[in-house]
Amino acid sequence: MIKTAVVGATGVVGQGLINRLMGHPWFKLTRVVASERSRGKKLEHVLAASDGVKELPEDLAGLEIISTGDFRVEDVDLIFSAVEAGVARGLEPEYARVRPVVSTTSAFRHDPHTPLLMGGVNAEHVPLLRVQQKKHGWQGFIVPKPNCTVAGLVITLKPIQERFGLKRVALTSLQALSGAGRSPGVASLDIIDNILPFIAGEEEKVEQEPKKILGVLTGEEIKPATFTINATCTRVPVLDGHLLSIMVETEKRTTPAEVGEVMKTYGREHELTGLPHAPQEILTVTEDPFRPQPRLDRNKGNGMTVTVGRLASAPVFPGGIKYVALSSNTGIGAAGGAVLMAEYLAREFLNWV
Amino acid sequence: MIKTAVVGATGVVGQGLINRLMGHPWFKLTRVVASERSRGKKLEHVLAASDGVKELPEDLAGLEIISTGDFRVEDVDLIFSAVEAGVARGLEPEYARVRPVVSTTSAFRHDPHTPLLMGGVNAEHVPLLRVQQKKHGWQGFIVPKPNCTVAGLVITLKPIQERFGLKRVALTSLQALSGAGRSPGVASLDIIDNILPFIAGEEEKVEQEPKKILGVLTGEEIKPATFTINATCTRVPVLDGHLLSIMVETEKRTTPAEVGEVMKTYGREHELTGLPHAPQEILTVTEDPFRPQPRLDRNKGNGMTVTVGRLASAPVFPGGIKYVALSSNTGIGAAGGAVLMAEYLAREFLNWV
Amino acid sequence: MIKTAVVGATGVVGQGLINRLMGHPWFKLTRVVASERSRGKKLEHVLAASDGVKELPEDLAGLEIISTGDFRVEDVDLIFSAVEAGVARGLEPEYARVRPVVSTTSAFRHDPHTPLLMGGVNAEHVPLLRVQQKKHGWQGFIVPKPNCTVAGLVITLKPIQERFGLKRVALTSLQALSGAGRSPGVASLDIIDNILPFIAGEEEKVEQEPKKILGVLTGEEIKPATFTINATCTRVPVLDGHLLSIMVETEKRTTPAEVGEVMKTYGREHELTGLPHAPQEILTVTEDPFRPQPRLDRNKGNGMTVTVGRLASAPVFPGGIKYVALSSNTGIGAAGGAVLMAEYLAREFLNWV
Amino acid sequence: MIKTAVVGATGVVGQGLINRLMGHPWFKLTRVVASERSRGKKLEHVLAASDGVKELPEDLAGLEIISTGDFRVEDVDLIFSAVEAGVARGLEPEYARVRPVVSTTSAFRHDPHTPLLMGGVNAEHVPLLRVQQKKHGWQGFIVPKPNCTVAGLVITLKPIQERFGLKRVALTSLQALSGAGRSPGVASLDIIDNILPFIAGEEEKVEQEPKKILGVLTGEEIKPATFTINATCTRVPVLDGHLLSIMVETEKRTTPAEVGEVMKTYGREHELTGLPHAPQEILTVTEDPFRPQPRLDRNKGNGMTVTVGRLASAPVFPGGIKYVALSSNTGIGAAGGAVLMAEYLAREFLNWV
Repeated sequence: MIKTAVVGATGVVGQGLINRLMGHPWFKLTRVVASERSRGKKLEHVLAASDGVKELPEDLAGLEIISTGDFRVEDVDLIFSAVEAGVARGLEPEYARVRPVVSTTSAFRHDPHTPLLMGGVNAEHVPLLRVQQKKHGWQGFIVPKPNCTVAGLVITLKPIQERFGLKRVALTSLQALSGAGRSPGVASLDIIDNILPFIAGEEEKVEQEPKKILGVLTGEEIKPATFTINATCTRVPVLDGHLLSIMVETEKRTTPAEVGEVMKTYGREHELTGLPHAPQEILTVTEDPFRPQPRLDRNKGNGMTVTVGRLASAPVFPGGIKYVALSSNTGIGAAGGAVLMAEYLAREFLNWV
Repeated sequence: MIKTAVVGATGVVGQGLINRLMGHPWFKLTRVVASERSRGKKLEHVLAASDGVKELPEDLAGLEIISTGDFRVEDVDLIFSAVEAGVARGLEPEYARVRPVVSTTSAFRHDPHTPLLMGGVNAEHVPLLRVQQKKHGWQGFIVPKPNCTVAGLVITLKPIQERFGLKRVALTSLQALSGAGRSPGVASLDIIDNILPFIAGEEEKVEQEPKKILGVLTGEEIKPATFTINATCTRVPVLDGHLLSIMVETEKRTTPAEVGEVMKTYGREHELTGLPHAPQEILTVTEDPFRPQPRLDRNKGNGMTVTVGRLASAPVFPGGIKYVALSSNTGIGAAGGAVLMAEYLAREFLNWV
Repeated sequence: MIKTAVVGATGVVGQGLINRLMGHPWFKLTRVVASERSRGKKLEHVLAASDGVKELPEDLAGLEIISTGDFRVEDVDLIFSAVEAGVARGLEPEYARVRPVVSTTSAFRHDPHTPLLMGGVNAEHVPLLRVQQKKHGWQGFIVPKPNCTVAGLVITLKPIQERFGLKRVALTSLQALSGAGRSPGVASLDIIDNILPFIAGEEEKVEQEPKKILGVLTGEEIKPATFTINATCTRVPVLDGHLLSIMVETEKRTTPAEVGEVMKTYGREHELTGLPHAPQEILTVTEDPFRPQPRLDRNKGNGMTVTVGRLASAPVFPGGIKYVALSSNTGIGAAGGAVLMAEYLAREFLNWV
Repeated sequence: MIKTAVVGATGVVGQGLINRLMGHPWFKLTRVVASERSRGKKLEHVLAASDGVKELPEDLAGLEIISTGDFRVEDVDLIFSAVEAGVARGLEPEYARVRPVVSTTSAFRHDPHTPLLMGGVNAEHVPLLRVQQKKHGWQGFIVPKPNCTVAGLVITLKPIQERFGLKRVALTSLQALSGAGRSPGVASLDIIDNILPFIAGEEEKVEQEPKKILGVLTGEEIKPATFTINATCTRVPVLDGHLLSIMVETEKRTTPAEVGEVMKTYGREHELTGLPHAPQEILTVTEDPFRPQPRLDRNKGNGMTVTVGRLASAPVFPGGIKYVALSSNTGIGAAGGAVLMAEYLAREFLNWV
C-alpha cells in the first residue's frame, strides 16, 4: 500500500479526499495534516457530515490530526495538498523536494515547468514532470489539477478539439455552492431566492487554464492552444454540480450528431481504464432535453462522469455547436479528480502499481 | 377614467395586471373575466397572496368574476388579455373588432401586420396598428407584448444597436419560477437544489422576437433586424427576476465604458416620461461586480427598471461587449410591461389622455 | 421468487416501490399497473429520475405498463397498492379476494378488522388478518401501512410506551415536499423562502393512527391506546425527510438518559432481523445537538432508520421527555416501509420464505 | 429632532436600525459607530443591500463611520446599541451614565433592575427604569428588547394571559436565517434542502425571557410569571420571519373563538397608537388555514404586525388552545421593535415628544 497524507484535511476538498481514500485499494491514508488549530483532534471529530463524509473504518477513526509544522514528509509516499493557494506556495515545493504532491490548489497551475493535468485529457503532458524535477533538483514533483469548472469543461472540449478544432468558446457557468467551500463559503442570506453574477477570480481561471491543458508539449514547455475563450461565471443555489452553457466555434464545420458521436466514443475509450476511480464513461451524452440536471446527474459514475445534453447547432457560430455540460465540482472537479490523477501517475509515471 | 377589463384574471400574469391597475390614475378596472370555473366568485376570493397581490380597495373587493362567455366587450374601453395563447387566438380578434387589446400572450406576436411593442424600445412601430386595423376592418387592435425574457433583453440591446450596430448576440438565461406560472408551474421537487437546463419553446421566442422588435417599419411591414442571436434558456430556483448573461458582437468596435455611457443615457431619456408606470430609468448600469442580483434588483423602479452589470470586453467577439442583465419577469416582463404599453398607446395613439 | 405487482406505478410512492423491488432477493416485479393514460408505455419511459429511481436492469426496462382494467390479479402472488385513496377503496378489496395486498394508502387504515401494521412496532396485530379474511371470505388480505409522518413517530413512541407508558404527546412536524407527491405536489412558487403551516388532512391522521398502531389486539378487535396526541403539521422546503419536534408526558417519570438507552436497545433488537429491508437499527440516537438533519440523516440504513436527537427533559411535562426525530418519508415512511412489511408477512404470516 | 447614534452599525440589526431611522420624524441619525475596521468609511459604502437597506438620503450617504473609541456619547441624545453581547456589557453602562440606551443585545436582559421591554406588552414595567437610574446613579438608562423569537411570542401570549391565565406553553420554532446574522450566519451548504434542529442558546432565552416580560412589577423588582414554558428551536431555509407552533394550557378553559376575539381586540387597542412605528394592529388573526406564511405575512404592518392563524383547541391541554404565529424577526423582532420601544419611551418616559 502507498502511504498517503492529506494536507488541509478540514476543508471541503480535504474532506472529499479523505472520503475517497477510505478503502482505497492502493492508497492508505496514514497522515492527516491541518493547521495548528485542529492539531491533536481525532479524525472522526473533524469530519463534516455535511460534506457527505462516510462513516470511518476503525483504523481511520482514531487517526490524530497533526499540524503542518509537525508533519514529516518522509513518513509518507504521496501527498495530497488541499490547503489555500497562499499556503500551498510555501509548502508544496518543500514537500516536492522528496515526494510527489498532487495539489487541488491554483498555486502552481501557471508555472511553465508544471503540467496542469486532467485525467483523460492531457496525459501527453506528464513528461513535463521530468523537466520540473530536473529544474528544481526535486525527487518528487507537484501536479496541480485544474479549477473545478475547468475540469468538466476541458473533458467536453477535448474530443471537439481533436476532431473538429476549436476557434472560439463562449460559456456561462451556473456554479454550485460547494465550490466556494464552507468557511466562509456563501452565506445562506445571500443565495436563497437569488443568483450571484460574479465569482472573484473565477473567470480568469476558466479563460486561461483550458488553453494550457489543451496545448501541446514541445520540448520543455507547453505551447498553449490558440482558441479564444470567454466565460461569465455565476453562483446558484445548488449544493453540488456545476452546469455550463457552452457555445463553440469549430475549425471544421460540424453537426450536433457528429459531436454527440465523438463525445460518446471519447467518453468510453480513455487511458484511465483500470484505475480505481475511473468511471465507465468520463463523458456521456443524453438526448433528454431536460437533462443534465445538477441534482440528478452529479453522482453519475461516482461523481466522475461529465454529462452533456442539449447538443444543437449554434447560429452565432455557423457550423459550430452549443451544449450544456454538468460535472460534479466536488467529484471530478476536486477530490475525485485529484485521486484519479494520483492513480494515473502511480501506475504510468511512478510505476508503483 | 378609462374602463378596463382583465381577461384571464386568475393566472400569475392576470393577478399582476389587477395589482398594477389598483389605484391607477387613468385605468379603472371594471370587468374581471376568467374561465367558467371562477364565474361568480368575488375578486377578493381569487387573489393569490402568493403572487404578491396587495389588499383590494373596497370598490374592487366585491367585483364579481364573469366568464368569457358573459363578457360584453362594449362594456369597457380597453382590454388586457392574459389567457393562454390557444384561447387568445380565438378571443383577441373578436375583442379587437371594437376595442383595443393589449395582450401578454404569444398568439399574434408574429403576425405580419401586428407590431410587437416594447415600451421605450420601438414606438416607431406603432403606426403598423393602422395597417392592422385597415386590413381586418377593426375599430380596435391587438398589441402583443414580448416574451418575458425578451422584454429585458431588447431594452439592453436597443442602445447598443442604435450606436454600435448588432452583429451577433449569444446569451444564456437563468429564468425565475414565476415565469412558468402557477398551475402547474415548476414543481418544488424538480427545482430545489437543482437547475432545469431547458424551457420548452423559450429559446425560439428569444431568438425570433428581438429581430422583429429591433427591425425597421417600412411601409406596411416590419423588416426584421439581421443580427444573429443564440439562446440557451435555463430555469433556476429564484422566485422573480430573469438574469441574462449576454455576449454581443457589434458592427463598430466599442468598449465597456462607451456601452455603459450609452446605456445610462438611454435609460434616462426615453419616450415614456410622464406615464404612470414609467420608471425614472428603464435601464440602469451598476459598477458593483456582484450586481445585478435577482432578489436585490428585481423591484428597482417598481419592477420596471432593467439593471445591467459586469460590463466587460468579450474576447470571443473582438471589439464587442459582454454583460449581465436583470429584469423582473413579472414587472417589465409581463404585467408591468403590458400596463406601460397601454399607457403609452392611451396617450400617444388613442389620444385618450 | 414471489411474483409481484405494483399498482399505481407512476406516482412518487409507486416509483419508490419499483426502486426497492429491483434486485430484490424474494420479490420479482412482474406486473406494473397504472391508469389508462400510461398503458403500453415501457417501464423505462415512466421512471422519474427526479424520484431517484436507479437504472433498470434489462428484464425490467422492457416491462410494459398495463392498465388497472387489464391487470389480472391471479398473474401475481403479491400486490403493492400505491393508488389514490379513492381508487384504493374500489380496487384493493377486489384484489384481496385472492391475493395479499400491501397498501400505502389511507383507504382501510381505520377499518376495524384491518390491522394498521408498522414493521418493528406492532407485529402482535398481524393475527387480525385472519379475522379480516374470515369476515370477507377473502383468500388474500389488505394490510395498510401508516401515514408517512406516523411511521417515524410510532417507532420512537413504542419503546417509551413499553417502558414508561404514554399519557400525552404534543408534536410539530416539519414535513418534506416528497410527502406531497409530484402532481400537483407543492408548487415551487409556494415554498421557496417559505413555510406552509398546514397540510390538509394530515393532523387528523397523525392524531388517530398512532393510537390504533400502539393499541392492544383483544379477540377480534384492536383497543386503541388511550394517550392524548396533538399535532401541528407544516411543510418545509426540504426534499425528503420529515422532522418531528416531540414532547411526551409519560405514565412513569423518566429521564433523557433512560429514554435514550431504551430507544437504542429497541432500535437494535427487533423482530425484523434477516429481512432484506431491515436496517441494522430501526431507531438510533445521536448525542450531537445539531442532529438529526433531514439531508444528513434521511438515508441512514437505506432510508429505514429513524434518528432521534436532542433528548431532554420537558418542563411542561414534569418527568417527561422531549426530542427531535427524523425519518425518510419516502423510505421507512412509504415505499421502504411497505416493502419491509411485505417481507415480514411473507416470512412470518404467509410462510413463503 | 432627537440626535441618535447607532452603535454596531454594520451587522444585520444595525443595518435594520439605519433603515428604520431614515426619514424618521423624531429621530435624526447623526452618529454611526462601528468597530475600528470600518472607521472612516462612508455610510453608503457599508450598507448591505442584501439586508434590504433602502437608498440613503443625501445627508446620510456621506456620514462617516466612527469607531467606538472615537464616539463621544454626549454628541447624541439617544443611543441604539446593536453590538455583540460581550461588547455590550462593557459599552452600554458607560453610555447609560449620561444617555438612554435602547439595546438589541441580551447583555442586560436578566439584570434585576432592568426591565425587558416589549412595545405593546409590558409598559407597566417602565417605572423600573427609575430604580435602575437611582441604583447606578445614571442620568440615562439601558432598555434591552427581547430575543427575536420572544418578541412575537409574548405579543400572542399577553392577551391570553390577561383573559384566561397561562399555565403551560409548549412551542416549536421554525426560525429564519436572518436571525443568525450575516458573519458567519448560517452557511448555505448547511441549510439548502435541510433543517437545523438546534440553535445554540436560543431555547434558554425563549424559556426565560417571557416570564420576566409577563411578570408583575412589585416595588423595585419584577416578579416573574409562573407558567411553565418549553421550546424546541429549529432553523429553516427562510430569509425572514419566525414561525412558531404553540400549544397553551390556560388557567380558565377557553375556546378558539374566544381566543381569536381577545387577540383581535388586543391587536387593535394598544398603548402604541400614534407612534411612528406603531402598526395599525400589533396582532392580527387569520382564518385562512394556510396562513400565516413567512414570505406572505412577514411584511404586514411594515414588519411590525404579528399574525396568528390555525387557532384550534389542543387535546393535550383540555380547555386550552393551539395556534401558529408569524413575526418578522428583523422587524418587530429586532430593529423595528427597538425603534418602536425608543419611540414609546421618548413620548411616555422622557417626554421629549
